[in-house]
Amino acid sequence: MNITTLTSEISLKRQLEGGNEEQLKTVRQVIADVRERGDAAIRMYSEKWDGFAPAKLRVTDEEIKEAVKGFDEQLYQDLTEAAANIRHYHSAQKRHGYELPLADGSWLGQRITPLDAVGLYVPGGSAAYPSSVLMNVIPAQVAGVKRIVITSPASQDGKLPPAVLVAAHIVGVKEIYKVGGAQAIAALAYGTETIAPVDKITGPGNIFVALAKREVFGEVAIDMIAGPSEICVLADDTAYADEIAADLLSQAEHDAMACAILITTSDTLAETVAEEVEKQLQKLPREAIARKAIENFGHIYVAESMEEAIRAVNSLAPEHLEVMTDKAVETARRITHAGAIFIGRYSSEPVGDYFAGTNHVLPTNSTARFASGLNVDDFIKRTSIVYYSEKTWAQNAPKIARLARLEGLEGHARAVESRRWDKGEE
Amino acid sequence: MNITTLTSEISLKRQLEGGNEEQLKTVRQVIADVRERGDAAIRMYSEKWDGFAPAKLRVTDEEIKEAVKGFDEQLYQDLTEAAANIRHYHSAQKRHGYELPLADGSWLGQRITPLDAVGLYVPGGSAAYPSSVLMNVIPAQVAGVKRIVITSPASQDGKLPPAVLVAAHIVGVKEIYKVGGAQAIAALAYGTETIAPVDKITGPGNIFVALAKREVFGEVAIDMIAGPSEICVLADDTAYADEIAADLLSQAEHDAMACAILITTSDTLAETVAEEVEKQLQKLPREAIARKAIENFGHIYVAESMEEAIRAVNSLAPEHLEVMTDKAVETARRITHAGAIFIGRYSSEPVGDYFAGTNHVLPTNSTARFASGLNVDDFIKRTSIVYYSEKTWAQNAPKIARLARLEGLEGHARAVESRRWDKGEE
Repeated sequence: MNITTLTSEISLKRQLEGGNEEQLKTVRQVIADVRERGDAAIRMYSEKWDGFAPAKLRVTDEEIKEAVKGFDEQLYQDLTEAAANIRHYHSAQKRHGYELPLADGSWLGQRITPLDAVGLYVPGGSAAYPSSVLMNVIPAQVAGVKRIVITSPASQDGKLPPAVLVAAHIVGVKEIYKVGGAQAIAALAYGTETIAPVDKITGPGNIFVALAKREVFGEVAIDMIAGPSEICVLADDTAYADEIAADLLSQAEHDAMACAILITTSDTLAETVAEEVEKQLQKLPREAIARKAIENFGHIYVAESMEEAIRAVNSLAPEHLEVMTDKAVETARRITHAGAIFIGRYSSEPVGDYFAGTNHVLPTNSTARFASGLNVDDFIKRTSIVYYSEKTWAQNAPKIARLARLEGLEGHARAVESRRWDKGEE
Repeated sequence: MNITTLTSEISLKRQLEGGNEEQLKTVRQVIADVRERGDAAIRMYSEKWDGFAPAKLRVTDEEIKEAVKGFDEQLYQDLTEAAANIRHYHSAQKRHGYELPLADGSWLGQRITPLDAVGLYVPGGSAAYPSSVLMNVIPAQVAGVKRIVITSPASQDGKLPPAVLVAAHIVGVKEIYKVGGAQAIAALAYGTETIAPVDKITGPGNIFVALAKREVFGEVAIDMIAGPSEICVLADDTAYADEIAADLLSQAEHDAMACAILITTSDTLAETVAEEVEKQLQKLPREAIARKAIENFGHIYVAESMEEAIRAVNSLAPEHLEVMTDKAVETARRITHAGAIFIGRYSSEPVGDYFAGTNHVLPTNSTARFASGLNVDDFIKRTSIVYYSEKTWAQNAPKIARLARLEGLEGHARAVESRRWDKGEE
């Protein structure tokens, strides 16, 4: 890894793959076809791209039971414990509406309502991602969403990965479809004979899934379009180089576009971390990916002071920040921009990816400046309520009419004044 | 207005103007120019489109003082009272982070941080919109945003409307720029010599502003892209036709694309409202606009029962809903999808546009199914925090490593396990 003296503002920002015209054209065609021909279009595209078109798109109870039965008992317990931790953390986010009484019997309110239905896309491919199921489903459940749907591409044997089905079973989701790609997003947004539409779509996916989510945005809500993973470690000479190196690599192994940065006040640590990264890289199964990430987006910065280092972290606004310094809790308090903060040497970042209870869907590419990780509020909406009594109306109507006329909106003024004539009680 | 029997699902959705290729090209050029040449590009475009390029982009304290001095005293009071009401309502939305203690000294947290800087676009043109200033600025202030910037196009005399400056003065915003159009959005997103960039841009604008907001989205956050206004009135035979007609027209006068719908259980009311709308239309200053809206997107539906009427409202998910029925509070409780609800005959919709305290920036085009009006949460972000003690780590590391390996991420497992060897205390 390169080591540089921290001099001016540094940036995590990467030009991210926006998809090319050809891909966008394909995605638009898929969406149009699914809107027009429903399940038939889904089958066609699944066969074309996933190599398998299931006769029944929906996973049966038997398939779920079978997956659970064949699943490792220890792992089942681990997932169950992780789910409980995630539920515990997110339950504190549950919010309630309010009513504000005004004078004379009037009141204002804010009502919180969960979304009716949400869909979670779980990517397929070589690995299974049960943690995605937990991280997306549980906040929606805490919010009170009644209908939660999972879609994921079947592998060529026509099955979904057991780990995904088991995770769904643990959180009680039963509506699962063997559909992947842009066709899954189209089905969730517009509905087909088999799949009723949802109000919001969350979950990661490949470029076709990301483009499809952008296309249906507005018709339904979507979560963020997450970029490649990022980790930033803020450390002084009390930290351990091998631990930092291992944590940097844990994110680098995700994606060749992932970003791993160390900002430290210690020259010595900078050098030993660079050595450790190389040493550990050589033994990593996903060495090729991680090495590319480290070469392209890995960097060690040496700062003059902790002040300067903290400023740099805040200007980066990284997705994941680890604080491994003396008085780490105090140091962490001075971070204003980060998706998630892990404090101290025992809070290795994967602790949050899988288990601690916080969400692993987090803002990337410096958007932590203004964006948040997935949370319960992503699955609710607010309705404001106005109740004005006759007396409150009588007192305020002239003011409201004046303000409307100030903006040239006579019809607004007349609407408020139209109550003027007493026609009896409401 | 057309009257139809409510039979099946009805829809408010309109094909909204997405801007054409030519407009998008222009907007992209403007953004590129402002990024490259800063203030000079702003001046060029302001001269071209607003007919005026101010020597100083920033409004001076003297200009604000002058506007306040010449402003109607009564209106000043009205705006001040409206601002206080808006602050009162939004203050109840202020939220705080939390810390969840776990066993053995570990804890999880969620930290709430206000955005550093936000920019509000206030449209120019024939009218001034002081209410936009109040509705956008106050939630940001309640959230704790320190830097709030307003941009608005100057008129040909090189001035901003006094009402906008007065509203800004009342809420204490002093950083105001005479810049409009796509060049204003570019400046807010990327910064120029004079205008430092912000983290989020809110506020309505014309098609160029809307397209520019879409283009810079991701670089900064934006609020929703609001569509034309909508009102839906739910009424039975206890309601007054003239009041309903006035309220329908109050939204119709906004925009020829605005939508005004009455859903009622009363045949008689349906007919008298249709007559009243025509009668009032003829006397409305903005008759031409309102008439177009009523002709294109105005409709009266007669429902068999209140049950059926409520179902229709929920399927519409209107921006504004007025409930004028017997036991209106109870009826309103059964509405699950609406941006804002106004209960009873004295809660005419403009009450909320200007004065009551709720926000008038609301989700349109049926997005109230999943979206909310502008609120304090739009100006904060959340950071999750994990603090694991050695003991908690020791207890859970094997589980976390197993879950990581289940997903094929060996580097994640090794990161957590790297703390295995005791190297002394943190």
